[in-house]
Amino acid sequence: MSGVLHIVGLGPADERWLTLEAQEALRDAQDIIGYEPYVARVPVREGQTRLASDNRVEIDRAKEALSRAMQGRVVAVVSGGDPGVFAMAAAVFEAVDNGPRAWRELDIRVAPGVSAMQAAAARLGAPLGHDFCAISLSDNLKPWAVIEKRLEHAAKGDFVIALYNPASRARPTRIADAFAHLRKFLPGETFVSLAKSIGRAKEEIIFSSLEAVDPCEVDMSTLVIIGASGTKRISREGARDWVYTSRKAT
Amino acid sequence: MSGVLHIVGLGPADERWLTLEAQEALRDAQDIIGYEPYVARVPVREGQTRLASDNRVEIDRAKEALSRAMQGRVVAVVSGGDPGVFAMAAAVFEAVDNGPRAWRELDIRVAPGVSAMQAAAARLGAPLGHDFCAISLSDNLKPWAVIEKRLEHAAKGDFVIALYNPASRARPTRIADAFAHLRKFLPGETFVSLAKSIGRAKEEIIFSSLEAVDPCEVDMSTLVIIGASGTKRISREGARDWVYTSRKAT
Repeated sequence: MSGVLHIVGLGPADERWLTLEAQEALRDAQDIIGYEPYVARVPVREGQTRLASDNRVEIDRAKEALSRAMQGRVVAVVSGGDPGVFAMAAAVFEAVDNGPRAWRELDIRVAPGVSAMQAAAARLGAPLGHDFCAISLSDNLKPWAVIEKRLEHAAKGDFVIALYNPASRARPTRIADAFAHLRKFLPGETFVSLAKSIGRAKEEIIFSSLEAVDPCEVDMSTLVIIGASGTKRISREGARDWVYTSRKAT
Repeated sequence: MSGVLHIVGLGPADERWLTLEAQEALRDAQDIIGYEPYVARVPVREGQTRLASDNRVEIDRAKEALSRAMQGRVVAVVSGGDPGVFAMAAAVFEAVDNGPRAWRELDIRVAPGVSAMQAAAARLGAPLGHDFCAISLSDNLKPWAVIEKRLEHAAKGDFVIALYNPASRARPTRIADAFAHLRKFLPGETFVSLAKSIGRAKEEIIFSSLEAVDPCEVDMSTLVIIGASGTKRISREGARDWVYTSRKAT
């Protein structure tokens, strides 16, 4: 008798972005598994096991969750944002693909969530209002040349670009390299928005341009949005400007 | 004394995808404004005004909402999915940009939601697990040549591609044209998933490939996901296969 494996999106930091489905899955689970700061966001419930681990062990965490579900447990693997976007869902299915055949019989349910770019966009106005792409700058699992190729085509295609994982201790110059590469294809005045710690008390938005942006402003909790030709800024007095991307092609 | 304008994402059809923030905004609003099927999804509350309109009048709807908020009302404009992704948020900010200066002083709050591609991805496995882009095939507001250019760069950049608005009565061959264009740049065996009516009782998933896909299977409620080189299918017995995109570059 096998159990259930929920892969649950908690959304960005603000708990008001939780969906009803995610809440139900967290309530039903016997075991909560995830990166420590995400597990810490799940309300403690008596009798529920909590297994918090380091950020780098995604595949180990996925295997642990799958093994427990195979033993008949109801397990929730938790992710910030949407588990389907640069998060735990791909790691779990990768583990299934390379694991014992029996894992394919499991009941695996993904509960989507609000991803970081959507929360950032909501704060800014509507920068993702037209065609956009999402690129992870993490080069742990892909060569930097692949990232450069994607940045180039995203720029040439005139997409709004949301950059995930823009900084890390291992590669602090990553975002500076990405900005430098984008400058080869996009005008210097291209809008850049840095959405920092969205949903937390220290939330901050910085507006800049591709030529003026300071890479040192970008940390691990920053979501970077590069505008397209149709991205516009609405100036306001006494309040933060709004940014949106017109639905019309320019 | 001006009011508040909430731009609220209802998520795809299943109400379990609503966020707590969206629920609160719907509860607080005096006026609910939106495309008829979305307004119909909001629980009726005594004393709340409901203004349902046709799909094509987004800017008129935005102006009506802004005018009411200026009169001091608490207004909620509702969208399916995420209002920030091919939905009402860009229309509202476009109206503000082109409207009376006083509209810029309004308190406008966007409540993000689960977008169609995320719900589709959750059902499929984790196809958006790595770099992806979202393209609207609607050519009401942009020339088809712009769409073709974006499809080309999305393909050349090896992005997973989520296609919104793939069909309409006005242009029934739109999705067939898009598949034909993508075939110039991508191998025929490229994975194609059609996620139909996700979250509704008649929900259906169809797996195919770029060379074999039948454009007639795509209707207005279909979200199309085109795989990248790292997209894989996990075969299962007696259950639907899973699709995920590996976090490793191939």
